[in-house]
Amino acid sequence: MIIAYETLKKNPPLVHNITNYVTVNDVANMILATGGAPLMSDDSSEVEEIVGISSALYINVGTLNGRTIESMIKAGTKANELGLPVILDPVGVGASTLRNEAVETLIETVKFSVIKGNISEIKAMVTNAKNAGGVDVQAEDVVTDGNLDETITFLKGVASSLKCVIVATGAIDIVTDGEQTALVRNGHPMMAKITGTGCMSGSVIATYCGANKERIFEGTVTAMVVMGLSGQYAADKTERLGEGIASFRTYLIDSMSMMRIDQLEEGAQIELQ
Amino acid sequence: MIIAYETLKKNPPLVHNITNYVTVNDVANMILATGGAPLMSDDSSEVEEIVGISSALYINVGTLNGRTIESMIKAGTKANELGLPVILDPVGVGASTLRNEAVETLIETVKFSVIKGNISEIKAMVTNAKNAGGVDVQAEDVVTDGNLDETITFLKGVASSLKCVIVATGAIDIVTDGEQTALVRNGHPMMAKITGTGCMSGSVIATYCGANKERIFEGTVTAMVVMGLSGQYAADKTERLGEGIASFRTYLIDSMSMMRIDQLEEGAQIELQ
Amino acid sequence: MIIAYETLKKNPPLVHNITNYVTVNDVANMILATGGAPLMSDDSSEVEEIVGISSALYINVGTLNGRTIESMIKAGTKANELGLPVILDPVGVGASTLRNEAVETLIETVKFSVIKGNISEIKAMVTNAKNAGGVDVQAEDVVTDGNLDETITFLKGVASSLKCVIVATGAIDIVTDGEQTALVRNGHPMMAKITGTGCMSGSVIATYCGANKERIFEGTVTAMVVMGLSGQYAADKTERLGEGIASFRTYLIDSMSMMRIDQLEEGAQIELQ
Repeated sequence: MIIAYETLKKNPPLVHNITNYVTVNDVANMILATGGAPLMSDDSSEVEEIVGISSALYINVGTLNGRTIESMIKAGTKANELGLPVILDPVGVGASTLRNEAVETLIETVKFSVIKGNISEIKAMVTNAKNAGGVDVQAEDVVTDGNLDETITFLKGVASSLKCVIVATGAIDIVTDGEQTALVRNGHPMMAKITGTGCMSGSVIATYCGANKERIFEGTVTAMVVMGLSGQYAADKTERLGEGIASFRTYLIDSMSMMRIDQLEEGAQIELQ
Repeated sequence: MIIAYETLKKNPPLVHNITNYVTVNDVANMILATGGAPLMSDDSSEVEEIVGISSALYINVGTLNGRTIESMIKAGTKANELGLPVILDPVGVGASTLRNEAVETLIETVKFSVIKGNISEIKAMVTNAKNAGGVDVQAEDVVTDGNLDETITFLKGVASSLKCVIVATGAIDIVTDGEQTALVRNGHPMMAKITGTGCMSGSVIATYCGANKERIFEGTVTAMVVMGLSGQYAADKTERLGEGIASFRTYLIDSMSMMRIDQLEEGAQIELQ
Repeated sequence: MIIAYETLKKNPPLVHNITNYVTVNDVANMILATGGAPLMSDDSSEVEEIVGISSALYINVGTLNGRTIESMIKAGTKANELGLPVILDPVGVGASTLRNEAVETLIETVKFSVIKGNISEIKAMVTNAKNAGGVDVQAEDVVTDGNLDETITFLKGVASSLKCVIVATGAIDIVTDGEQTALVRNGHPMMAKITGTGCMSGSVIATYCGANKERIFEGTVTAMVVMGLSGQYAADKTERLGEGIASFRTYLIDSMSMMRIDQLEEGAQIELQ
């Protein structure tokens, strides 16, 4: 399940990102830390050419606007033509009509390889539910042992219907392609205390999938494991040194950049269903 | 005067930010460190809905453009309708006609709860004075013991005229609603050596006011104290370890995320007038 | 050759930046660390006024779009009228028609003092070569001892033709005005492992040139030395502490902010030709 790691290190993928301006620097550094090469470009007149030299496309609607929505559609369509993995992060969908309509149009127009969000975002995406939590998960949606089976069934349905891998992030990350499902129990609560963890996760998925075009499910699972493990290492160091959230952010990217395959194999907490 | 702190920890406010792309990541992490939840959105077609799920609105004109000015006005108007605190940071006003006109329009259209800037910006905002210092205070404007009384009188007049709390930042932060005035002597000169201290201060004010809608003056004073104290702790650590300004930036956000109420009460240097 | 350093410390220049949203925060903090004052502004209706209060203009096309290209041309034209140094960073030129045309228009319209890029970007800029490496140098272009003389001859031709200082960055940074050439062997491979090193270098050049308008060649060489030395110090510390790329980024800016003239004079590895 973790084999994707070696492939990436041998063949660093160029990842094209159309993402928000809040966490874009963290996304770029995280892709570098993962072993890829980031490229940010969002003007509709050039995105198709940029897709043409890339190995994967990451679309994140965190601070979308009229200008960038057009670019997302053009870039996604081109990536589909070229057979590149396309990853969608529907940040804050449910919080506004603009986001709902943009995500709906994207899903109708572009074939995504992976869609990743918190469970409130995934629900809002397919049910037009209101999402009053903004970019955070809503309390009533949190995945627990009590509602885990029901949540998995729901997510498998979404994956089958959209014909892509769905990732619902949280204390337990759920990854499913509609048939196989992996529960990833790596990670640390401190990851929710900084901005950008979700965006970085999405870009790590794009990096792994860019280097493993034929193994999207395995690449996605590996990405969630390696992000979660980086969070665990970073939290350990932050707590040991008595530091705060900005140090944690630094150590999170540090940990990714120093991750070894043996750490990954020993630390991975994956349950396949 | 510091009671606002506890209210915030019990009721983490969602803060909607329309801010510049230079320091937006620091602003998001600082809101999280303070105990709030940040949301960045600047497309005019969605800002009213985003305001609708928020507890406060922070408007910062650092890198404004035609597209975002319209969003600021729409969001501010909606926030007024809903009775949310609206905080303005008129970054660099006086440095261009665009900024002067945008800030003038904002003040005429939106009722602000708090306006925060350096003393050159506050002067430029109300007198159409030229501000050749860009985003920094001009030498002839610096507040000293010699011109303190005169400055306070000027700021009280601005606060009364605009019916809001005015904050003039500097070695001494002056906070006034036209009647009460607080001088806050927390802070450290190193805070002027990094970008974003001003923007972060504005977002911390928004976070405190979002959790204390009925106590805007106290919330603002507390925000300036907690920012200043974070700066003092961060500077101590930076100097002790012999590090530079980027480490200081990390420790500034770290210090905010670890601030305890007893530190706040012991460290606060507030003089009420 | 290093005298520019003292001039800067005596006369901190205000640097106007029209740059990408990926690394803009690092650029701002790096200018502050160098001893300058950053100002970011990209709306076409205000850039001329902002240029009017600045000492230098830095144009970086990393995430250019239709709106910002117009601002770059207006700002550059105004800076030429006022005799300010203008520095161009043609990020990713060769990767798209938009970038090629924008850079071509900029070079035809604006007189640049310094143009800085990796060798693939410099080649793409003058020969319309394709640049499939995105923002990174292409393998076949890397400057080695074997092709160094040939590369210098090429770059001197570009500098003479464009009547500006050309900087090709890499393991050896080559700076030439068409007559004098300096090879700078400072720096560290870790600088290529984070995003923003190139953008920060460009802004440091702008800061040095802003404080040394009559000594553009010397200012540029000093900037490359001080960036390279900061990278060396930061890599030493990162390796000593066993940390990763995000810590390296912090130490890079830290090192710049603490650089002393004696370190600069002792550490500089400049070969004049």
